[in-house]
Amino acid sequence: MTRYATLAAILSQRIEQGLYSAGERLPSIRALSLEHTVSISTVQQAYRLLEEKRLVEPRAKSGYFVRNQPLRAELPTVTRPVQRPVEISQWEQVLDIVRSPPRDDLLQLGRGMPDITEPTLQPLLKALSNVGRHGDLRSLRYDSIQGVFGLREQIARLMLDSGCQLDAEQLIVTTGCHEALSTGLRAVCQPGDIVAVDSPCYHGTMQTLKGLGMKALEIPTDPLTGISLEALEMALEQWPIKMILLTPNCNNPLGYIMPEARKKRLLTLAQRYDVAIIEDDVYGDLAYSYPRPRTIKSFDDDGRVLLCSSFSKTLATGLRIGWIAPGRYLERVLHMKYIGSGLTATQPQLALVEFIRHGHYLQHLRRMRQRYQQNRDLMTQWIGQYFPANVRVSQPRGGFMLWIELYEDFDTLRLNRNLENQGVQVAVGSIFSASGKYRNCMRINYAPKLTAEIELAIKKVGTAINQLMEANSATAEECLPGQ
Amino acid sequence: MTRYATLAAILSQRIEQGLYSAGERLPSIRALSLEHTVSISTVQQAYRLLEEKRLVEPRAKSGYFVRNQPLRAELPTVTRPVQRPVEISQWEQVLDIVRSPPRDDLLQLGRGMPDITEPTLQPLLKALSNVGRHGDLRSLRYDSIQGVFGLREQIARLMLDSGCQLDAEQLIVTTGCHEALSTGLRAVCQPGDIVAVDSPCYHGTMQTLKGLGMKALEIPTDPLTGISLEALEMALEQWPIKMILLTPNCNNPLGYIMPEARKKRLLTLAQRYDVAIIEDDVYGDLAYSYPRPRTIKSFDDDGRVLLCSSFSKTLATGLRIGWIAPGRYLERVLHMKYIGSGLTATQPQLALVEFIRHGHYLQHLRRMRQRYQQNRDLMTQWIGQYFPANVRVSQPRGGFMLWIELYEDFDTLRLNRNLENQGVQVAVGSIFSASGKYRNCMRINYAPKLTAEIELAIKKVGTAINQLMEANSATAEECLPGQ
Repeated sequence: MTRYATLAAILSQRIEQGLYSAGERLPSIRALSLEHTVSISTVQQAYRLLEEKRLVEPRAKSGYFVRNQPLRAELPTVTRPVQRPVEISQWEQVLDIVRSPPRDDLLQLGRGMPDITEPTLQPLLKALSNVGRHGDLRSLRYDSIQGVFGLREQIARLMLDSGCQLDAEQLIVTTGCHEALSTGLRAVCQPGDIVAVDSPCYHGTMQTLKGLGMKALEIPTDPLTGISLEALEMALEQWPIKMILLTPNCNNPLGYIMPEARKKRLLTLAQRYDVAIIEDDVYGDLAYSYPRPRTIKSFDDDGRVLLCSSFSKTLATGLRIGWIAPGRYLERVLHMKYIGSGLTATQPQLALVEFIRHGHYLQHLRRMRQRYQQNRDLMTQWIGQYFPANVRVSQPRGGFMLWIELYEDFDTLRLNRNLENQGVQVAVGSIFSASGKYRNCMRINYAPKLTAEIELAIKKVGTAINQLMEANSATAEECLPGQ
Repeated sequence: MTRYATLAAILSQRIEQGLYSAGERLPSIRALSLEHTVSISTVQQAYRLLEEKRLVEPRAKSGYFVRNQPLRAELPTVTRPVQRPVEISQWEQVLDIVRSPPRDDLLQLGRGMPDITEPTLQPLLKALSNVGRHGDLRSLRYDSIQGVFGLREQIARLMLDSGCQLDAEQLIVTTGCHEALSTGLRAVCQPGDIVAVDSPCYHGTMQTLKGLGMKALEIPTDPLTGISLEALEMALEQWPIKMILLTPNCNNPLGYIMPEARKKRLLTLAQRYDVAIIEDDVYGDLAYSYPRPRTIKSFDDDGRVLLCSSFSKTLATGLRIGWIAPGRYLERVLHMKYIGSGLTATQPQLALVEFIRHGHYLQHLRRMRQRYQQNRDLMTQWIGQYFPANVRVSQPRGGFMLWIELYEDFDTLRLNRNLENQGVQVAVGSIFSASGKYRNCMRINYAPKLTAEIELAIKKVGTAINQLMEANSATAEECLPGQ
């Protein structure tokens, strides 16, 4: 056994024995190096091994910590979606979510909204408010269909962090990431075309495919490493797939970050079968690790990747400012944008230029990454506390969404109905599937300040789940033959 | 001859003889009633007759005026587009217009931008600026996919002026009128479907049809009364038309208002052949006559009319707030909106609620109607002065666009190229046709303050036209047989 593996085994045993408890800070690298008379790099290697085993996790500037107990809840199973292209259903359930404006009497735990109450976001309100001052009329004018040039410059600068070397001319500002995805799809595919997606997959994407008359081919996906490349290759072999659409970084809803090597392999596959890739990176900047993970786009050398993102998750949903780096499809995407919604509102673009230029964006990101990581741990703890023991829970490495899998026959649609009178709503799993799978799953947002009110809501959800399970087993008994 | 016809003849003669000159105020109704010892209502009838003959025009609270001299330029000919469904081209020319941000060195006379420098628009800047004040976070949140309820209420109230009785639940806020048109089309039609349009037709609509893979069937259109119902009926008889798409009020680019009786007949036709109607009313509130003209939607009793509009032309383009009243297609349009761009930005919606609620919208409208009417007269006068004598010019009854028809072989694309170094750009006519017709036409925006700089620009356009015509006739001579 190597030195670092031996050290890792010792530390691992101590954690198992509860010597270092969940959430506790582990000894510093220097301290361990002295204690065990090994080199700094040996300790670093040992910690990296424990990190890979998901026993410890680094936190910026604070060292390593024992991962919280509840994270030991089992991961969701590797998904096994229907292995043929299907048309998408479930629009009614999605509509339920997006139609209702914010309500004081309903806690929408299922909605993809970031926390907007942090003081680091205040400069954005100020910037929005400043745009029209002193008779400045720019916000009332059309700008270019490609978006305000200054904003595109700032976005290009920010994208360097994900390994992308792009300039303003290669970017198009869109009305949210939604429009980025939609224009990207329409630029490459025709109605009837087959699009391979990771599964579960963001319901907005599913509905876009549906609305455009395209078919989704759901590829099995691992809750830690993402879309199965083996299954994808078989699918590419078997079907005339036109496009691969996926969220490799801080996946929504599973929260994984696809390892870099797999990203490269995916790109190679796409090149071999000559299909385009839409990479949804909308949560990418919210990875808990630093530097943030690279995009597939950053490896793209022939312009086949259309990278889509927005400020909706990192800053605020109400802005509706996203972007797309469409590679070789720029001209087509521009046309699709023009015919879909025309130009994007000018004022929020101008406000964002100021906000980013003064460093407020990166400052806010740092704050939110930390907050969301803490929230993930607390929410996971609550789930462990209030939900049935056998639930499976994702281990997000970024973003603010938890994916929870209940036993196979469970129906979260029914759960939501039961919760209706209690002022709580979760996102039902079935909207994340083209074929209505994942009825036994749900997505919960842990972005907001996790107050006692939210803890109570989680408790209510847990209670409702238990009640449904009891009712179910009662019914099952009643249906026994002979009764 | 009736009394009022006699009086009308007298007045008409006096105008012909120059006794009352162009732009001059005519005697008041009371004065004429005394002068000719006829009743008030006889004078009113006489004036109405002269108005119909387009010799005089009423101005709010100021009485009747002699229409300006240059309006006697002949009207554009009734259009004769290709009589079969065609796929749409001309994207490159449209892209030229929409890709460039506002430039100080280029006067974009072709772009559909209203004047935003009037003081009556200042409260909007203030409202935009106020939204995020005092820690109010509403502007950063998602609202309903249907749009902010308060704004829909205000829009419903405003629509009463056009005869529409709708409530907030029947409206969807969109990202500009562009998205309203696009979602409306996608809600009703499939790729390959045939859409009948007035012709010339707004290039945004044309490009939307192109992008959605639909075919445009251009219907001959009269520059005073709009789409030919006779031609439309023949087309409905001959082709499987799915939708009629038109701009009956303050048409873009021709400026006419379709008479009410014709609107009703069109609706009856649509009912008989069971096709839907998209009514683009984006310039409707800018009619120079008061009350503003009714919409076809206001007669719609079975929900087949999808009324589309926005604040882009009445207030400011940069807002990107439009709306659609989709009748029976509401659910489908909502889906198309969700998949196209998702929700519409919240802040401008909240600002608009304040702006309209405090009466600023109607105040601004009154101002702009008057301004645009005056500008029309002055611009028409300049065209008469600087353009060749035989040009045909539209007589807009609302909005801020002039349509100019040159002799048949003229090429406005070439004209624009020649103007490029002179810092002027017009909208070439061919983008208003699916089949590239109207190359000899152009659209000019008369919204801005008509400064000496703009007069100079019009002069430059006129000179460039003359030069091209001379060059053309020289070439024609060179090509004579035997040379």
